[in-house]
Order: sequence, then structure tokens, then C-alpha cells
Amino acid sequence: MSKLTRRGVMVLGGALSLAGAAKAQIADTERWGLYEIILDGPKTGNPFTEVSLSAEFRNGAQTVRMPGFYDGDGVYRIRFSPETEGAWQWRTMSNAKALDGRTGGFTARPASGDNHGPVRVTPDGYHFAYADGTPFRQIGTTAYAWAQQSDAQCALTLQTLKTAPFNKIRMCVYANVKAEPIEPFAYTGTRPKDWDAKRFNPAFFRRFEDRVAKLQALGIEADIILYHPYDKVHGYGEMARPDDERYLHYVIARLGAYRNVWWSMANEFDLVKAKTPADWDHIGQFVADSDPHQRLRSIHNCKAFFDNRKPWVTHSSIQNGMSVKDDTRAEIYRSVWEKPVVFDEICYEGKSDLRWGNLTGEEMVSRFWHGLIAGTYVGHGEVLTAENLSPDGGWSGIGGRLLGTSASRLAFLKTVMEAGPKPGVDPVDKWWDRHIGGQAGQYYLRYFGDQMLSEWPLELPKQELSGGEQFRVELIDTWNMKVTPVEGVFTMQKKDGYSFHDPARPVIALPGQPWMAVRIVRV
Amino acid sequence: MSKLTRRGVMVLGGALSLAGAAKAQIADTERWGLYEIILDGPKTGNPFTEVSLSAEFRNGAQTVRMPGFYDGDGVYRIRFSPETEGAWQWRTMSNAKALDGRTGGFTARPASGDNHGPVRVTPDGYHFAYADGTPFRQIGTTAYAWAQQSDAQCALTLQTLKTAPFNKIRMCVYANVKAEPIEPFAYTGTRPKDWDAKRFNPAFFRRFEDRVAKLQALGIEADIILYHPYDKVHGYGEMARPDDERYLHYVIARLGAYRNVWWSMANEFDLVKAKTPADWDHIGQFVADSDPHQRLRSIHNCKAFFDNRKPWVTHSSIQNGMSVKDDTRAEIYRSVWEKPVVFDEICYEGKSDLRWGNLTGEEMVSRFWHGLIAGTYVGHGEVLTAENLSPDGGWSGIGGRLLGTSASRLAFLKTVMEAGPKPGVDPVDKWWDRHIGGQAGQYYLRYFGDQMLSEWPLELPKQELSGGEQFRVELIDTWNMKVTPVEGVFTMQKKDGYSFHDPARPVIALPGQPWMAVRIVRV
Repeated sequence: MSKLTRRGVMVLGGALSLAGAAKAQIADTERWGLYEIILDGPKTGNPFTEVSLSAEFRNGAQTVRMPGFYDGDGVYRIRFSPETEGAWQWRTMSNAKALDGRTGGFTARPASGDNHGPVRVTPDGYHFAYADGTPFRQIGTTAYAWAQQSDAQCALTLQTLKTAPFNKIRMCVYANVKAEPIEPFAYTGTRPKDWDAKRFNPAFFRRFEDRVAKLQALGIEADIILYHPYDKVHGYGEMARPDDERYLHYVIARLGAYRNVWWSMANEFDLVKAKTPADWDHIGQFVADSDPHQRLRSIHNCKAFFDNRKPWVTHSSIQNGMSVKDDTRAEIYRSVWEKPVVFDEICYEGKSDLRWGNLTGEEMVSRFWHGLIAGTYVGHGEVLTAENLSPDGGWSGIGGRLLGTSASRLAFLKTVMEAGPKPGVDPVDKWWDRHIGGQAGQYYLRYFGDQMLSEWPLELPKQELSGGEQFRVELIDTWNMKVTPVEGVFTMQKKDGYSFHDPARPVIALPGQPWMAVRIVRV
Repeated sequence: MSKLTRRGVMVLGGALSLAGAAKAQIADTERWGLYEIILDGPKTGNPFTEVSLSAEFRNGAQTVRMPGFYDGDGVYRIRFSPETEGAWQWRTMSNAKALDGRTGGFTARPASGDNHGPVRVTPDGYHFAYADGTPFRQIGTTAYAWAQQSDAQCALTLQTLKTAPFNKIRMCVYANVKAEPIEPFAYTGTRPKDWDAKRFNPAFFRRFEDRVAKLQALGIEADIILYHPYDKVHGYGEMARPDDERYLHYVIARLGAYRNVWWSMANEFDLVKAKTPADWDHIGQFVADSDPHQRLRSIHNCKAFFDNRKPWVTHSSIQNGMSVKDDTRAEIYRSVWEKPVVFDEICYEGKSDLRWGNLTGEEMVSRFWHGLIAGTYVGHGEVLTAENLSPDGGWSGIGGRLLGTSASRLAFLKTVMEAGPKPGVDPVDKWWDRHIGGQAGQYYLRYFGDQMLSEWPLELPKQELSGGEQFRVELIDTWNMKVTPVEGVFTMQKKDGYSFHDPARPVIALPGQPWMAVRIVRV
């Protein structure tokens, strides 16, 4: 007889070692929170392959079906994050008698506190917002293997994130193993390459989901990388399709109900030798078909782009740092794929001899600004190490402390973004080398990068202007994080067939320093 | 009883007015030439909709089926351009007794003279070559409505093309009519909007195909634009799908056997209000399915890109002149679509107040060079008019004479391309701002655009270099069309983890002038 609870998490008692882990999970029945059914069931044979389990949740006319998963020691869980408030009833379905036909219910309360729901693509197609409509101004970072490090190291990473500007972090399920295996393994087996793709190791996943839950508590999206090409030790990336599907189903069932989860099919998909673009398309479509919560989906490249027009791709996740050295390059990606663009890897802040790891803080921050005015989003990374370790020892490898100079400037950038138009900045008069992003008629940002200009002709593209509109202008020192108002108001008049300006003040003075921007806001 | 001939074209005798037009056609039975079956058939009812006609051509094991078309006055034609030499037998199929079951044969001789076959995409996926393997170094131009102008004007255009560098011209089937209708109409009917989509006007198409044939004789590809958004008079772009399909079938049957034909589904597809992207996808797939000769296929945009990964798209045809202001922008299009990229509209050389028509000759030529080193191709256009007519009156509207300064420099560029690697120039070490195109280890081009440099550090990306390779270097003044050898030989040695150079000569002198390039060729 299974014990059953209607609370988010049931503590099964001291006899089971997973009780501690369960306590660490987020347990609420808010809208967009995590509700969990816990059931006792068969523990003989191979429950991962022999037992099917799901539950149907009903709220009036709405019915959704959630997959369950086996958590070891005879314990089964079904997780659900309700999209709507109110009373929900559920009924389980299983090929195991003990798990089948169980029923229950709960009430999803209104979301509270910092719970804005999961992040989704906005209706315009190029930005992100939480489900409650709050814009999601992506300032991402990457720490591939932070979640597999020691508890002490993970605590340090979380402590760092608490005060960092980042609201999304890219992180691998399978550790980024180059030489030594990391325990616990993701599957049962005591030696690398000697593991059973049909038997997951719940302890491994319980540890991983604990990190995801703690990120959620910090308001940080977990961009979960499902595969990567780096693990020569375990070879998890070389599984056969049925094993891939079992893995995806398991991860989706375990993690998909956390509202801060995003799915990244792979890091550098084109370097995974065992898989073709058709395999990735299958994996992406499988995730889209299997994930009832419909979390965001992307796939990250090395030298070859994926076809990001594929319907299952919700946004593009790009490695090509050169593309955000200039907004006009970055914008092309928006136009060709007609989806949000996230430049998730743009080289790392660091002092490596390797060119992917030698950005100055200034250059890192500059790429974020170029990306912003292109209407795209950018991700941070850092491979600085206090001890001159290999780059993998730095933040973007194993988390820990941030040692670079960019993060504080990205926090400043975030304040600029948050004060900007909703849902985000779009390029204005694209394809004519304006280098202006914003919202035509209302708000404009011009960013000058490493140019050291002493003046700039303040001209606005004609879109949404008819003459007489008034604007206030500010100079933004993006590196020194200062905003300096330009005195007075600018009144727009038609300059020519394409532009408006204030004939009384056609040019504004700039300080001859790099990393300057101009913000122009309608009065 | 129909008269039947095995020659390419049968002159039916003085009684029929189309004989003259037929004489102007290319008539040979070479490989890749045009073979034509001419048959007499029904002239009552509506032969365009009521009579089906095709022929099966057999050459040993190979069988291909060619569509026929009605040419008016009871005359039917079936055209075929054989891909292989040797003996071909054919048999007709029709629902009209007089046209059904006719048989014949001919021998396709080896190609001769300038007949290199149709242009295709090369196996590497990014370039073009004729069917016999000769690289096709695209230097395109555009004259939308030249083919619908008077015979005298058309003769002038052809005379201009005879000495111009262009080997591809973009041209509309339906004239680019903004105000006045042009006769003959494409369909029967005496007034605009009063025409019958079920009855083509053979005289219109006979005239058009005469232009196509004359371009072929000049070795120029006809990039035929099937639809456009400009004709407010006839509304040919607003037909229903069955009428579209009938039109496409007719044009394919009439023109597809000319080896210089390319299909452009539309100019500025996204401005055609009557059609959605799904409609264009249908049209492109219909052409791919209906054209037994499998001519090249593309679709041209205004502000929204088509999904050029669609299987029926053989190459992308881009309007965005800003993208070839810098090779690193242009290259992105190659990487996202993994197909040849042709920047078919990059603004026009001209002095218009409109920004799409005010390029200097220098800027036009510069865009070609940036495109070249990006591994892409570019198209010319010109709206200069001697008489200060509207821009539509210039070369890119109605053909005639070239008045600009770019064409001669594009001829010079073509000689550089022809002396370059086969099948074309590829970006070397893409995504690292090298601004170098060529063939790694063998051939490099660096282009400086409007930068006026007095020196340049000659560094080559490490790809295909191991040290000891020797290169000769030339300075190319792309505007003044001069090639100046740099004395001696450069012997490469490893400089760092990414580059090679000659330590004895790490920097070369440049003349401090704009529009310079450096060519580096393996000894």
C-alpha cells in the first residue's frame, strides 16, 4: 500500500535515503509551482524499463497528462506544474497494479513572490517573457559542469550567482569529463564504459535536480544541456536511439515540472560524431512531443549551424562570438530564422592563449551591447583561474567564483534593459547600418563600441515619427556605468526622406572615450 | 496529319506566322542543346486546358518525360535538352488522337563551342559550375523588364550585354508594369484586368523566349522571375492556385529546355500580398516537381527572408546590400543556409534620392569584392539615366545602355575570379575576422574596401599549412584595375597557434589608397 500525499512532497520517513533529497525540492501548489505525487511500487526486475507510469490532471475542461519516473528503492514520482489556478483532480495510469488508478487532487493557489511562471517566446517572435507577462531580459552565463562538482563547490557557485546579474545558466546533465570520471555516474555501473543505459542512477539525478531547484529559488533559468561531445570516458553521447529516448523521457519526467528549465539538445551538436543532423532533429522533436510543460528548446553549435527554422526549435542558441562584434551581423540571425536569437557562446573572458578564451572584460561587455541593439541576447562565460589552472578550471567549467571584470558591467546593462521597452529592443530601420535598436517612435539606443567619438549626428529613422516629437537624451558610459543626461529636449523634424532630427541641435557631443552609448527616450 | 521533323525546329511553312519566331530559336541536337518536336493538333475549344501532351524520351536505360505546350494556331511543341549524348527515341502521349503515340528519334552529338551545359550547384554545396565542370563565376546583373521592351530596345540591350561582364541577368516574365499596360499581354484579353487566365497569348511568350535564346547565344544565364508585386495593372500575381499551376507548367514546358534558364519564383516575394510563405513553398515545390530539366531555383526577398533551407531552393537569392559591405556579414548567409548565396540585389549604381538607387561605382564594385572573399556571389544593378528619367527608366528597368562606372571594374574582377581556385573562393578560418577568402594552403585574397592602409601584416590562417610553403604576392588595385607583383617569395613559418607568416617579411607595404586587395598564390 502506497503512502500518498497531496502536498508537493511527501517525506517517506527515515528508512529511505532519498528523503533528505526530497526535502530540498521545491514543494508548493502554486500556479507554475511543482506538485508531486509519490507512490510506492515494484522494486524487482528493472522498473526503469518494465514499469510505465503517468497521471492525468484535470481542471474543468483542461486535461494534461504527466509522465512519471522511477526514483529507486520502490519509489515512483509524477511531477506537474499547473498552468492555471484552481482545483485539479488526478488519476494515475500504470501497468503496475500498485501504481494504477490512484486518484487525488489539489488546489493551485495564485503565484506569489518572485514566481512569474516559466519563460516563453513573446508573440512578436523575437523576445522572451515570463508566463505572467513580465519581460525576461536574458543575461546568460555558462558553467558546464558546475552541478556535478562537490557540494561545497556548488554552494560557492550558488553564492556567486546570488549577487551576479545572470538570469540563465547553461549547464550539462552529463558532466564535461575529459579525463577522470566523476561520481556518481548517471547510470548504474562502477566503471566508465561499464554502465547500463537501461538503469539510471537516481542519486545522480537527485543531485542534479537539487541544483536546478536552487537555481529556481534564485530566479535563474537552468538551460539544461542534454548532450555534448566531450565525454570520452563514459560515452553517454554515443547511445542508441532507444536509449536516447529513455534518457530524454526520464529527464523530462524528472525535471520538466521545474518552471526554470530550458532544454538545450546539445552543446556543439556538430562535434558529436555519433549523431547526424537528422538524429538531432529526431531528438528535438521527441522532446517537443514528450514534454507536457513545453519548456524552451534550442541546440548549440560549433562550426555548423542547425536549421533553426525547424518547428521544435523555440529560439536559436548560437556560438559565434564574431557575430556580436557588430550589431548588423547579429541581426542577420533574427531575420533568417525569425525567432529569438541567443548568442550563448561568444568566447570567454580570460587570458588563455587559446583565442576562444582571451576576451577582455571590455570586449565581453561590448558584445552584449552590440547584441542588445541588434534585438538579440548574449551569454557570458569566463575561464579566468586564480591558480593558472587549465581553462576548464574556471567559472565556465566548474563554477565557483567570478574573477573577471565584466559581470558588474552586465549588471549595469541589465538595469538599462529593464528600463527599456517591452518585451525588448528591436533593430530600428534594419539593414541600413543605423546601429540603432529600440522601439520606433519611443525609445532608441545607439552603441558605439570601441569607437572614440567626440560627436554624433543625432538622427532617428523616420519610422513612427511625423515631426514634433520630443525626446530626452542621455550619454551612457557602459564600462564606467554612468548615465549623463544631455541638457534640454530634442524636438524632431524631418531631415530627409529617411531621417528626423532637431535642426537646432543636429549633433551631440561625445567624450571621445570607447564603450559609449546614447539613449533617446520620448518625453 | 501532322508534319513531323526530327530536326530541332521544323519550319511549318509560310502559312503560319510563328514560323519566323521558330527560326530564331536555338535548334540543335547537341548534348544540352534544344530538341523540339512540333505537331499539328486540335485548335478548337481551349487547347491550353483541354489538351494534355507529353513525350517520353529514351536513351538505353534512361527515360525522361517532357511536357508539351500549345503554341497557338493548332501547333503543339515538346522541347527537350538531352543530358547525355547518343541515340534518343521518343513517343508522345496525349488525350488528343492526333498528338498521341507519335514516335521518332534523334542523336545527341557532343557539345561544341561555348556549350558547357546548364549551370548547377557544385558538390561542395557553395558554388556553381556548368554541367561539363567549367566553373561558373557569377557576375550577375538585373534588368527587370528589358525583355518586354521594343525590338529596337532589346537589340540595344543585347548589344550592351555582348561586351559587358555579366553572365547572368535577372528578368521578369510579366513586365514590371506600374502604370501603363504593355502589349502583347501574357494572356488573351484586350484590356488590363480583362484577361483569361486559362488562355495564354503565345505571341507574348514567343517574344520572351526569343530573348532567352539570344541570351544563351551570348553565354548569359536567364534568371527568370516568375512573379513580382509591381503589376497593379494586370494583376497576374493575384491568380488562384490552379491558374498559377497552369502558368508554371506552361512556362516550364516552353522555356525549361533552354540550358541557360534559372527559375526565380519571385522578386520581393514578401511584398506580394496575395501569396503567403506557404503559397511560395507550394510554387517552389511545384516547379521542382514539374521541371524535368531541374533548372536552378531561388526566391528573392524584400524585408523578410524566405526559408532557404527548403529542399527545392537550390541557392539563396538575397536582397540586402548592407550584407556585402563586409565579408563577415555576407558569410553568415552561407553558414545558416548551407547553400550558394547570391546577393542579387545590393542597391543600384545611381544618383537617385532614394537610398536603394544611389551607389557610387566604387561602392558597387566594393560590394562584389566583399562578397567574393566571403565565398558568395553578387549582382549588379544600375538606375542611371541620361535623361533624368525615373529610376525605372535605367538599365535595371528597361535595359539599353550602361552608363555607370562599375561594369568595367566588374569585368576586371571576373578575370581575377577566373584565375582563382575551382570551383570558387571560400572563406578561410571563417568567424575569426580574417577577411580572407580563397583555398587554404593554395590561394588567398584579402580585400580592404575603403580602408586606406600603408601596410598590412601578411598572416595566413594555419589551415593546410605546416611551414616551408612558398607564396608569391600581388597587390590588386580593384578600381584602377592594376596588378602589381610584390618582389620575391614569402616562405611561411608558424607564428603562433593560429597563424603562419614569413618572419623575414612579416609586413607588406600598401599604397594608402582605397579599394586595394592582396592576392597570395602558392608557388
